[in-house]
Amino acid sequence: MSYFRSLIDTLDGYEPGEQPQDTGTIKLNTNENPYPPSPLAIAALKNFDGNTLRRYPRPLADEFRASVGSVLNIDPTWILVGNGSDDLLNVLFRSIGDTDRSIAFPKPTYSLYQSLAQLQNAPVISVPFDESYELPVEDLIKAKAALTIIASPNSPSGNTISNEAIGQVAANTSGLVVVDEAYTAFASSDALSLIHQFTNIVIVRTLSKSHSLAGLRLGFAIAQPTVIAGLSKVKDSYNVDSVSARVGSIAIQDTTYTEEIVRNICSARDTLATALASIGFLVWPSEANFLLVRPPHENAKTIYTTLKQHGILIRYFDEEMLRDKLRITVGTSEENQKLVDALEQFKK
Amino acid sequence: MSYFRSLIDTLDGYEPGEQPQDTGTIKLNTNENPYPPSPLAIAALKNFDGNTLRRYPRPLADEFRASVGSVLNIDPTWILVGNGSDDLLNVLFRSIGDTDRSIAFPKPTYSLYQSLAQLQNAPVISVPFDESYELPVEDLIKAKAALTIIASPNSPSGNTISNEAIGQVAANTSGLVVVDEAYTAFASSDALSLIHQFTNIVIVRTLSKSHSLAGLRLGFAIAQPTVIAGLSKVKDSYNVDSVSARVGSIAIQDTTYTEEIVRNICSARDTLATALASIGFLVWPSEANFLLVRPPHENAKTIYTTLKQHGILIRYFDEEMLRDKLRITVGTSEENQKLVDALEQFKK
Repeated sequence: MSYFRSLIDTLDGYEPGEQPQDTGTIKLNTNENPYPPSPLAIAALKNFDGNTLRRYPRPLADEFRASVGSVLNIDPTWILVGNGSDDLLNVLFRSIGDTDRSIAFPKPTYSLYQSLAQLQNAPVISVPFDESYELPVEDLIKAKAALTIIASPNSPSGNTISNEAIGQVAANTSGLVVVDEAYTAFASSDALSLIHQFTNIVIVRTLSKSHSLAGLRLGFAIAQPTVIAGLSKVKDSYNVDSVSARVGSIAIQDTTYTEEIVRNICSARDTLATALASIGFLVWPSEANFLLVRPPHENAKTIYTTLKQHGILIRYFDEEMLRDKLRITVGTSEENQKLVDALEQFKK
Repeated sequence: MSYFRSLIDTLDGYEPGEQPQDTGTIKLNTNENPYPPSPLAIAALKNFDGNTLRRYPRPLADEFRASVGSVLNIDPTWILVGNGSDDLLNVLFRSIGDTDRSIAFPKPTYSLYQSLAQLQNAPVISVPFDESYELPVEDLIKAKAALTIIASPNSPSGNTISNEAIGQVAANTSGLVVVDEAYTAFASSDALSLIHQFTNIVIVRTLSKSHSLAGLRLGFAIAQPTVIAGLSKVKDSYNVDSVSARVGSIAIQDTTYTEEIVRNICSARDTLATALASIGFLVWPSEANFLLVRPPHENAKTIYTTLKQHGILIRYFDEEMLRDKLRITVGTSEENQKLVDALEQFKK
């Protein structure tokens, strides 16, 4: 006998990437940023007045929200702050999904969407990408979902979805369309401008990747104020702690630093893509801080396992369309070179 | 037309207490601790290596979990860490509540329970306390709820529920029984030992009040490992950030400091209770860091409003059984004296 809802018992739960704690591992499996956070953000952490922690944080993380608004030139009432973007995805799925209100997304994509839909007992309509990873617009429209979620750039494919395609879906559904822009800082375009045109688009972003703050848990959603107001009722009252709000506020304002590290990563990404292609890997064009690749001959899972034994961790997904592929986070140039060296070694 | 589930549109959402940001207000409305956090915890915050934030935190907040385990002498597999205890209540309600799986609790109590049950569309069976605030054991058993939640000490009444009463409910229900011990550090007993006897009891605690860390968002649940494993599937993968886990770990181990500030608060509480009784207030016996009181003649709401105008914030609940009462957080001796002086002033 179980104390839980039956769906909880059958749920696998979202499986996060491995997080080894040794510092020797070259960790290219969870799309973390190889650079430290902004020095100004680190200074803000060091100078934080710990005495103020006896008080509850601001329910809407006002300081961080104002900083996001000022950097993106958006009124704060259009912004909801979360304990990582996962928190906001959670709030979105809880606000919208239900037994008679379905969730649609193209696949393969971020596997959390499937887990969150299951938690709501909401029907899932997952529409397969083909190997070009262009958005299956027609099928998503036909799904008539209460919530359609599109990751752009998509993981693990790395491609950006065009605003035209997102707009087509939004214009032809009565439901909400969430654009998960976790990796957008590494892309050549984003969907932010669409929020003015469409009342049903929600943009979700995170400071985990572009701002090197995965350990701090900070994300935000952007949408028209009525949507933000609805979502606010569902989030935890005090979902973002005072330290994160302060440090994140400084980090997001340090655009010079972020642009510099993002530029370095994009450059290292292109170098890595060329190197992998030159040893026979098929490399999907990426606008994110990772590459989806297909090895020339070897079994993808074997490569993952062998690299792991050599202290290099990349991501293997044991799921449809992905069993012959690997996802590699772009590290520093040195880390990427070590990966390429190891892969060349295996060929011999 | 709304994009949300209909229940979200009708939901009021949990209303947190007012959080004025000026430092002049004497803030006795949200049960915050008047003392700063442990100096060792503040030092840990200052010495935190910000560079490590580029990495995701440990999914189960291992460091904090181990510290809780060592302080309470419990194996870490019996502990789940949350982004505040609200996060854990959220996870519990999502894991258990459903349209055909009801939630029971005595009332008046922490009003979040009602909001969380509504979000799950779960039937709510709220059993009234009488003014002695003894647990209505028989009625809670008769409710046959999938989840029964008991705050002990209860808010706003301040009384501890006996282990005998909690055990009776747990022994006679096939559902889970959650004991919300947010205020237990200020009480003479707790229900922790019951987890060994009952597979269906979950204890939830927070560092917000006793450890002066409301701003950091840290709570934990304690239950048998199979229950913890089920709840783990529902929580966000990275629900607790690295800074909070580190600082909380040091704070919870500094038992000497916590015991000292808790002793001070309990002593100030008893002094305040005597002072309020001497000016005609009915004061319920409290084992928490707040007092439930009924003013002698004046209208409770008027007192709340007048105090607010004088820069003293206490809590008035516009709900059944509470409209003639006030909840007053125990502040420092100086703050409490100012409150008593102000109340005496009104009498004249």
